Amino acid sequence: MKAASAGGKRLLKALRREPVDQVPVWLMRQAGRYLPEYRKVRAEAGSFLDLCYTPDFAEEVTLQPIRRYGFDASILFSDILVVPDALGQPVAFKEGEGPVLEPIRNAGELAKLKSVEGLRDRLAPVYETVRRLRRSLPAETTLIGFAGAPWTVATYMVGGRGSPDQAAAKAWVYTAPDEFQKLIDLLVAATIEHLSAQIEAGAEVVQIFDTWAGSLPELSFRRFAMTPMAEIRTALKQRYPAVPVIGFPRGAGPMTAAYLDATGIDGLSLDTAMSPGWARDRLQGTTCLQGNLDPLLLVAGGSEMQRQVRHILDTLGHGPFIFNLGHGIVPQTPPDHVAELVELVREWRP
Amino acid sequence: MKAASAGGKRLLKALRREPVDQVPVWLMRQAGRYLPEYRKVRAEAGSFLDLCYTPDFAEEVTLQPIRRYGFDASILFSDILVVPDALGQPVAFKEGEGPVLEPIRNAGELAKLKSVEGLRDRLAPVYETVRRLRRSLPAETTLIGFAGAPWTVATYMVGGRGSPDQAAAKAWVYTAPDEFQKLIDLLVAATIEHLSAQIEAGAEVVQIFDTWAGSLPELSFRRFAMTPMAEIRTALKQRYPAVPVIGFPRGAGPMTAAYLDATGIDGLSLDTAMSPGWARDRLQGTTCLQGNLDPLLLVAGGSEMQRQVRHILDTLGHGPFIFNLGHGIVPQTPPDHVAELVELVREWRP
Repeated sequence: MKAASAGGKRLLKALRREPVDQVPVWLMRQAGRYLPEYRKVRAEAGSFLDLCYTPDFAEEVTLQPIRRYGFDASILFSDILVVPDALGQPVAFKEGEGPVLEPIRNAGELAKLKSVEGLRDRLAPVYETVRRLRRSLPAETTLIGFAGAPWTVATYMVGGRGSPDQAAAKAWVYTAPDEFQKLIDLLVAATIEHLSAQIEAGAEVVQIFDTWAGSLPELSFRRFAMTPMAEIRTALKQRYPAVPVIGFPRGAGPMTAAYLDATGIDGLSLDTAMSPGWARDRLQGTTCLQGNLDPLLLVAGGSEMQRQVRHILDTLGHGPFIFNLGHGIVPQTPPDHVAELVELVREWRP
Repeated sequence: MKAASAGGKRLLKALRREPVDQVPVWLMRQAGRYLPEYRKVRAEAGSFLDLCYTPDFAEEVTLQPIRRYGFDASILFSDILVVPDALGQPVAFKEGEGPVLEPIRNAGELAKLKSVEGLRDRLAPVYETVRRLRRSLPAETTLIGFAGAPWTVATYMVGGRGSPDQAAAKAWVYTAPDEFQKLIDLLVAATIEHLSAQIEAGAEVVQIFDTWAGSLPELSFRRFAMTPMAEIRTALKQRYPAVPVIGFPRGAGPMTAAYLDATGIDGLSLDTAMSPGWARDRLQGTTCLQGNLDPLLLVAGGSEMQRQVRHILDTLGHGPFIFNLGHGIVPQTPPDHVAELVELVREWRP
């Protein structure tokens, strides 16, 4: 292994499998309700979608955790459901309820959605936020764009809201898979378009969140999680070969190995239940891993958090690796614990 | 492989890794709300716990799915929360809300629980149901007793109800693990006692459900899911060496391999997200697998269900294997689909 070169962004180096001087670190949902300065902007902005669609607000909340903690990456503040919103299925965020949409459950309702062509116009404020962030972020901070994976976005489009078992979307998958495939195909195209626009506006990495991948049995996982991800990755690599793609097939367990083989992604985010040792042995040889501290350990802080952070670093830190959580940060997280976590990662040496 | 012998119960043979003439089949929560005859008894019984604690009712609902479908196994109708109920933490089941308990969140509250000694007296009606079932079940049907795993039962005892992230129990695990260990130790002892009493009353197999195992990161999983299960299995094997023990570490992903190695259990139940191919290659050489059809495929029925049932059978059916779901049957399941599923499994040949 050659010595770490002085220049270049740490997170990009890890994703290119180059040596780094320290393990890069950022946290999923690092801009969010646990920060008082976020809650202030959120109250000012009106609705959650107004916050996403107003570059002044979205830029500000994206920058807040960078100012506080100096993370190696900044992830655009937005939501995976701006895609259905832009496709003509309006999304509302109700306090304490999460997102609510008028469900789409058959080919007729699907046909009423708008085509992908107008998506860039409708989401122009999001790309404007990306452009501004690229200018305002510190030179060492990598800007990550993101989207939801087609399956996960579809669970909300079909269910009309979050659900513990994704029953509505599965009802469609299991009774008319070829019809459901049309929704997935639309979302593959929309996701490619949305991520392309983010990259052209300045995103240096993109991450695709498949939060509900682990609810699918193997055959459905292959068709509706793995194959769409491979299609998105291939399309993006043709257009932007230098931009790394990170996947997050949450809950996919041992199927994660097949997912990695089929998609060839540069980075793979691990959920909390994933064994770091298994991931190192089976996955780290071909991709940069990312993860996987339990967000509730960050809430607890203290010696147990320290012990488990070190376990992750000792197992995966020799790289390529990006320290992160196994799922998004939760609102009750004390901001001081985040500072302590960043310190722990910064201090660790192989 | 020697030829299948004519006599003996199919499910027990599979668990002993002996050849069988057909793949045995039963379904988690096979006695339940999807059956009109169950709903009738449920309405008569009063509360859900009255149903569990009244042998006349509990025996009847346990037998209902056996009469309809002729499953290879009958699982005692009961609930994992009878254990805290017997330890002096009363459980109420509220309609549409699930179980509700007065939470236990520290050593002081823990000290108020009763000891394990009186558990058999307090749960006497449950064991009476087991005794009756052993007499009333058909000769070819195996009677399965069960309990919740300590970690999963603890999530309800500490949280006071079900939660999507087990935050309350994790708060204790992560801030005072040695204190939380005392709750786990109590539950290990109570689980051994509860399963011993079921075995002595006539249960031929026991299954231990760790529904929330997959929410724990590796270090916590080893300490609070794997080690307790190894302790329970060892104690039961010392007392009842011929009684097979099945574990169900739901959501444990690749950690399932370590779990199997550490516990040496006879059977391992697979959740829906578990890859049948990986399970065959990594686990089936040392244990009898069980699973793992998505309960929502059973709701859908039809050609997609058939295709996925065959995928599971073709991958795992050469045994040792027990066909089952990846999680409990859901109330909206059409009873006809269950009949079709049993037919599919019965028809399958290696």
